[in-house]
Amino acid sequence: MSFQNPVFIPGPTNIPEAIRKAVDMPTIDHRSPLFGEILHPARANVREVLRSQAAEIFFFPSTGTGGWETALTNTLSPGDKVLAARNGMFSHRWIDMCRRHGLEVEVVETAWGEGVPADRFEAILTADKGHAIKAVLATHNETATGVRSDIAAVRRAMDAAKHPALLFVDGVSSIGSMDFRMDDWGIDIAVTGSQKGFMLPAGLAILGFSGKAKKAGEAATLPRTFFDIRDMEKSYAANGYPYTPAVGLLNGLKLATDMLLAEGLDNVFARHHRIAEGVRRAVGAWGLTLCAATPELYSDTVSAIRTPEGFNATDIVSRAAKEYGVAFGTGLGEVAGKVFRIGHLGSLTDVMALSGIAAAEMVMVDLGLPITLGSGVAAAQDFYRHGAPAKKAAA
Amino acid sequence: MSFQNPVFIPGPTNIPEAIRKAVDMPTIDHRSPLFGEILHPARANVREVLRSQAAEIFFFPSTGTGGWETALTNTLSPGDKVLAARNGMFSHRWIDMCRRHGLEVEVVETAWGEGVPADRFEAILTADKGHAIKAVLATHNETATGVRSDIAAVRRAMDAAKHPALLFVDGVSSIGSMDFRMDDWGIDIAVTGSQKGFMLPAGLAILGFSGKAKKAGEAATLPRTFFDIRDMEKSYAANGYPYTPAVGLLNGLKLATDMLLAEGLDNVFARHHRIAEGVRRAVGAWGLTLCAATPELYSDTVSAIRTPEGFNATDIVSRAAKEYGVAFGTGLGEVAGKVFRIGHLGSLTDVMALSGIAAAEMVMVDLGLPITLGSGVAAAQDFYRHGAPAKKAAA
Amino acid sequence: MSFQNPVFIPGPTNIPEAIRKAVDMPTIDHRSPLFGEILHPARANVREVLRSQAAEIFFFPSTGTGGWETALTNTLSPGDKVLAARNGMFSHRWIDMCRRHGLEVEVVETAWGEGVPADRFEAILTADKGHAIKAVLATHNETATGVRSDIAAVRRAMDAAKHPALLFVDGVSSIGSMDFRMDDWGIDIAVTGSQKGFMLPAGLAILGFSGKAKKAGEAATLPRTFFDIRDMEKSYAANGYPYTPAVGLLNGLKLATDMLLAEGLDNVFARHHRIAEGVRRAVGAWGLTLCAATPELYSDTVSAIRTPEGFNATDIVSRAAKEYGVAFGTGLGEVAGKVFRIGHLGSLTDVMALSGIAAAEMVMVDLGLPITLGSGVAAAQDFYRHGAPAKKAAA
Amino acid sequence: MSFQNPVFIPGPTNIPEAIRKAVDMPTIDHRSPLFGEILHPARANVREVLRSQAAEIFFFPSTGTGGWETALTNTLSPGDKVLAARNGMFSHRWIDMCRRHGLEVEVVETAWGEGVPADRFEAILTADKGHAIKAVLATHNETATGVRSDIAAVRRAMDAAKHPALLFVDGVSSIGSMDFRMDDWGIDIAVTGSQKGFMLPAGLAILGFSGKAKKAGEAATLPRTFFDIRDMEKSYAANGYPYTPAVGLLNGLKLATDMLLAEGLDNVFARHHRIAEGVRRAVGAWGLTLCAATPELYSDTVSAIRTPEGFNATDIVSRAAKEYGVAFGTGLGEVAGKVFRIGHLGSLTDVMALSGIAAAEMVMVDLGLPITLGSGVAAAQDFYRHGAPAKKAAA
Repeated sequence: MSFQNPVFIPGPTNIPEAIRKAVDMPTIDHRSPLFGEILHPARANVREVLRSQAAEIFFFPSTGTGGWETALTNTLSPGDKVLAARNGMFSHRWIDMCRRHGLEVEVVETAWGEGVPADRFEAILTADKGHAIKAVLATHNETATGVRSDIAAVRRAMDAAKHPALLFVDGVSSIGSMDFRMDDWGIDIAVTGSQKGFMLPAGLAILGFSGKAKKAGEAATLPRTFFDIRDMEKSYAANGYPYTPAVGLLNGLKLATDMLLAEGLDNVFARHHRIAEGVRRAVGAWGLTLCAATPELYSDTVSAIRTPEGFNATDIVSRAAKEYGVAFGTGLGEVAGKVFRIGHLGSLTDVMALSGIAAAEMVMVDLGLPITLGSGVAAAQDFYRHGAPAKKAAA
Repeated sequence: MSFQNPVFIPGPTNIPEAIRKAVDMPTIDHRSPLFGEILHPARANVREVLRSQAAEIFFFPSTGTGGWETALTNTLSPGDKVLAARNGMFSHRWIDMCRRHGLEVEVVETAWGEGVPADRFEAILTADKGHAIKAVLATHNETATGVRSDIAAVRRAMDAAKHPALLFVDGVSSIGSMDFRMDDWGIDIAVTGSQKGFMLPAGLAILGFSGKAKKAGEAATLPRTFFDIRDMEKSYAANGYPYTPAVGLLNGLKLATDMLLAEGLDNVFARHHRIAEGVRRAVGAWGLTLCAATPELYSDTVSAIRTPEGFNATDIVSRAAKEYGVAFGTGLGEVAGKVFRIGHLGSLTDVMALSGIAAAEMVMVDLGLPITLGSGVAAAQDFYRHGAPAKKAAA
Repeated sequence: MSFQNPVFIPGPTNIPEAIRKAVDMPTIDHRSPLFGEILHPARANVREVLRSQAAEIFFFPSTGTGGWETALTNTLSPGDKVLAARNGMFSHRWIDMCRRHGLEVEVVETAWGEGVPADRFEAILTADKGHAIKAVLATHNETATGVRSDIAAVRRAMDAAKHPALLFVDGVSSIGSMDFRMDDWGIDIAVTGSQKGFMLPAGLAILGFSGKAKKAGEAATLPRTFFDIRDMEKSYAANGYPYTPAVGLLNGLKLATDMLLAEGLDNVFARHHRIAEGVRRAVGAWGLTLCAATPELYSDTVSAIRTPEGFNATDIVSRAAKEYGVAFGTGLGEVAGKVFRIGHLGSLTDVMALSGIAAAEMVMVDLGLPITLGSGVAAAQDFYRHGAPAKKAAA
Repeated sequence: MSFQNPVFIPGPTNIPEAIRKAVDMPTIDHRSPLFGEILHPARANVREVLRSQAAEIFFFPSTGTGGWETALTNTLSPGDKVLAARNGMFSHRWIDMCRRHGLEVEVVETAWGEGVPADRFEAILTADKGHAIKAVLATHNETATGVRSDIAAVRRAMDAAKHPALLFVDGVSSIGSMDFRMDDWGIDIAVTGSQKGFMLPAGLAILGFSGKAKKAGEAATLPRTFFDIRDMEKSYAANGYPYTPAVGLLNGLKLATDMLLAEGLDNVFARHHRIAEGVRRAVGAWGLTLCAATPELYSDTVSAIRTPEGFNATDIVSRAAKEYGVAFGTGLGEVAGKVFRIGHLGSLTDVMALSGIAAAEMVMVDLGLPITLGSGVAAAQDFYRHGAPAKKAAA
């Protein structure tokens, strides 16, 4: 197993050296005060990353999927109705989870490549006079399609409809990498995981709960134990945990969020945008298009790239892995075989991105696609490069 | 934060150097064939550690608590009845979880310090002519009290009662450290975690399911998604995972089980027994007694040591941490303040155990207990030492 | 300090994950048998890497410079005469060292960019009827100029002159990366370090001594203690070391040489050649030339690239580091400011090399050089890529 | 290879977690400014550890032995006379090195177990009216015998004799662990290594030079290149190094010295004294004696323990390693077989020390020595334990 090349999957990301070392921690007594010295700063930092003043932050030894389950089971009861758009694999899975837990889902079918349709949400919510809908589910960034939805618009739709439903947002592949505003957007539950913007190994579900979401939990009857936030909350207050915590990951999260906040969230987002835009320039130079329908939907963490009709996009991923030792993402669900994905989130530099673009070019040429070697690289370089010193001085 | 002294908590254990390095793995594409090369050997190894021929092995990014929830939700339906003994904190919590999930629990209250009462189980099961009881829950090793129950006896009780209930065993603090026989004992679900006998950080729930347990799942209606073994099973067959796996931990588990099997399970168990017996000799030399009522209940992974009336056992744990940088376990639940615990599982040597015993002695003398410094150490040394060469030659 | 991008200096190289872990070893007793289990296999492996049957292998906690001093002080006496060519910074330094140690050096001044002039050596040696010259010094690969000399030709020159001088070869930046044949080329002392082809951190001088070289040491009167191979040899025979060894580095060397030999030396050399050739294609596409005068001199571990007259090549290195976080090598000595260097040895992939080429392009364009972005990358890609499957099938 | 137990050799020491991580550093360009950010703080810190205002600090990729050679070759010329006492293996080796380098050594033979005889030095220096003696060599702490000499007394002797010789002190196993005062004691060259008080792996010779020592170098004609401080000094001034530095070790040294200074040198020395005194109490309880002749000679970093006549002390070391996985030091040179050594320097706690004492007891009893198990442990515990809270409150 060689680990020489960076990975270009849309998470888990490449892990910074310092974070790997923070995670790789000898055993401590998690019932000692040391644990609180890791837990509480990590919680405060995550709250800040969510741009929230008062969200209650919870960490479960789990994944984003466990985070969704935490959101649902801590706020809803069997038979409750939720509203969700299906515009990609992850929204699809969340809808499926709702149904398995006995919730009724009003699904707004949406083309894969489109964002959450705020206007249709508004119509549905306005029509729901009896407020049967208890929660609106929105996937901020559809990792399968590289589509970033407008969560502020969803909030506006809810407000326009004067609807009291809770707003749950899957920010798994956006939080820590793209602008995310829990308070401004009136989000009740934000869900993410450790292995994306936080640049850690997988193993933590990370959630922010608004006061309203917590209150909803008092009446919620979906069964829960492992994912019960009440046990978490009580334990946190005593510097503890309801079972054995993943201490190393929490220690890594503390460092990762220290690093993000030290860099400045806006700088972090600008960095992701810059790297992503370089990849998009390359895609343009190749004469290919993104799965995301319009530029305002373009994700800054992952690009799903459509390949020509009749070509199996998955071959790119297989060949890149086998021949060049480079990992890209395959298309999932409805876009399987139609797109391949380049992840560009977390720990990445312009230079690393260029190596991924260069690898993709070689693979596509190998497979007979009409791509000019170096064309995507040149387009990205032109965007990435820092300009002639003379020009800089002039600026 | 100093990591110089070993920990003596009953898990997470001290982590061997090689396992730390295996866990601290750079990111790979978990959708690539590399993942299967980690997953499948780890599953095969765990099956062997469970001494099972055909158990289906599942790994969840979770903990032992999540493992329990997996066991319940994948086999039972709301209103189902289960039988369990409450003889310690962990059996207590498992009973609580059942109730939160809408199960009816027939609780056999048992003194903390006693084992699972197979005879009372037999009586109850015999009386349950209608087979309302769907599952029998047994905690193999009560980490809170240092009591190892006789699971073979529970199986015999079920057989004597000719009862078809499933047998679920919490082996969190026994599997990989003490004799555990999934097939011989007719266990349907074995539950453990990564951070005990497997010497890994916390973060994995590890389960073995018998065919009968899997079959029971077909009719089970407790809601489940994150913990659904059907998704796991389907994904495993495709070298995948239903969501993002904790690859580093799985890689560590592969190595940890390679190491255990290379040493030989019987040797591993003998090693734990030897170290534990040394600790028990020390306890005897101190004039103290174990929480476990009788020698056949003595756990080889943790000793809960009773302190004299009127003395707060938790002071030992606090002082050891603060003054000597040594972590012991406090008493939990009904035995809080009455016992302190020395964990002696996972990665430990005789010499490391002696340092824990020596630390405990200093603390107890500091706190005014009538302990002779060196007395426990001497008793353990006498047991641990390898004998004079002359004697050896004679033997 | 960010460690995201690979380095492109001509050593120390990027370090493979497994080797980092092997070096990062807890303390062992270096006087225990464990040490011999590391030392002896590492010595046997290095002998094989040197392609020698019987060379005595020595490791000093030092660097290549210490290796040179070992070679001189263990074989020569003050006033002894040696023959050497000065064709780069490292041959220059070695000559300087000889003089500091009271040796007389017959220096053959050679253009920087040319190889060791075997013909001139032959003339000088032939003329040395009295065999005043005790040793011939040759730098196999001049790291400063990217020039690989023909050591076999030097041996042929010595043989043609029927001269009994010892042949000392500096293989610091060639051994383990390019073909090196200690026995075939009649080398008496081969010198290298840990941080080049062996992909380790700096800290070890690594030497192979022929029997003839060892015998010469009996009469050598240059003072030596730390670098005395007699102490080493005696200690090795007792599984020991004359002072405290750098155990972690030796453990890493054992693994590194295991890896090289498992890959196969010819495969290792072919890999270095392939990566180097891609870099050279890029240089050609940029319209630039190498410092090395002719293709047979091209080094497969480092390319020194000439920049146009009037341009300060060092600006490329500074700007790459500052703006893009990428490390290249500056020109040294006579070629300072005239060349910049791309190291392509040790742990590197085609894809990593492409990222270095791409970075160099951005920097050169930033600095106003008439380079087309993507041109070098495309030329290298064309060389690196594995061919269309169709073509492969046809072949 | 198991790394579970701490080592009890007199260096290399157990390495703190944070230092291991600092040493295990990815490759950087050692010619970039990053290097200076490591080098210069490390030098400043070491100067402070030496308690010097103006010593010039040098680091060589080498060991303490290389440090001695640096001291000699940078200040002396062939035929120069030096004064030294032989009172253990390391002073013996240093004398041997002097002779190999053509120096004339006036050796003061001293019993192994005694310190440097300042009075005899004074007599010799007083008699040396012509100041033929150019340097006085003193081993501060004889690692072989566990004897700490009085360097202040040596200085007083030199002053009393009004002798201008340089004073070179081997502080390899004292610096960073025991009081060492370069300026107060008028030391001209202080020599140490990375693997003792600095708690790093072996691989660095660390030296402090007074202005007088540097000045002496101008006339010194012993040949030197690798160990030439003039190249070092010049390179340091340019943020560089004369050859490839051991960057990871230097990075670790920066952290190690940060840690020592943050703890406070006096606290560090008190800690070593406390742990050492506990070991000495154990030795007393065993009825054994130290090699060091009198208490004021007792070393706080290593205890050499005499075993009874007719008993081979090396058996203790062999058996401890083989049966218990614990490393002690053997006797060296004149005391081989007569003593075994317990190292108690660097990263160690009271509790770790107790485990070493306990292991030694088991081994000695195994081997038939009349030792009472637990006796040494009890004596050490009595010294180490922190006292009853009641007493503390009263105090």
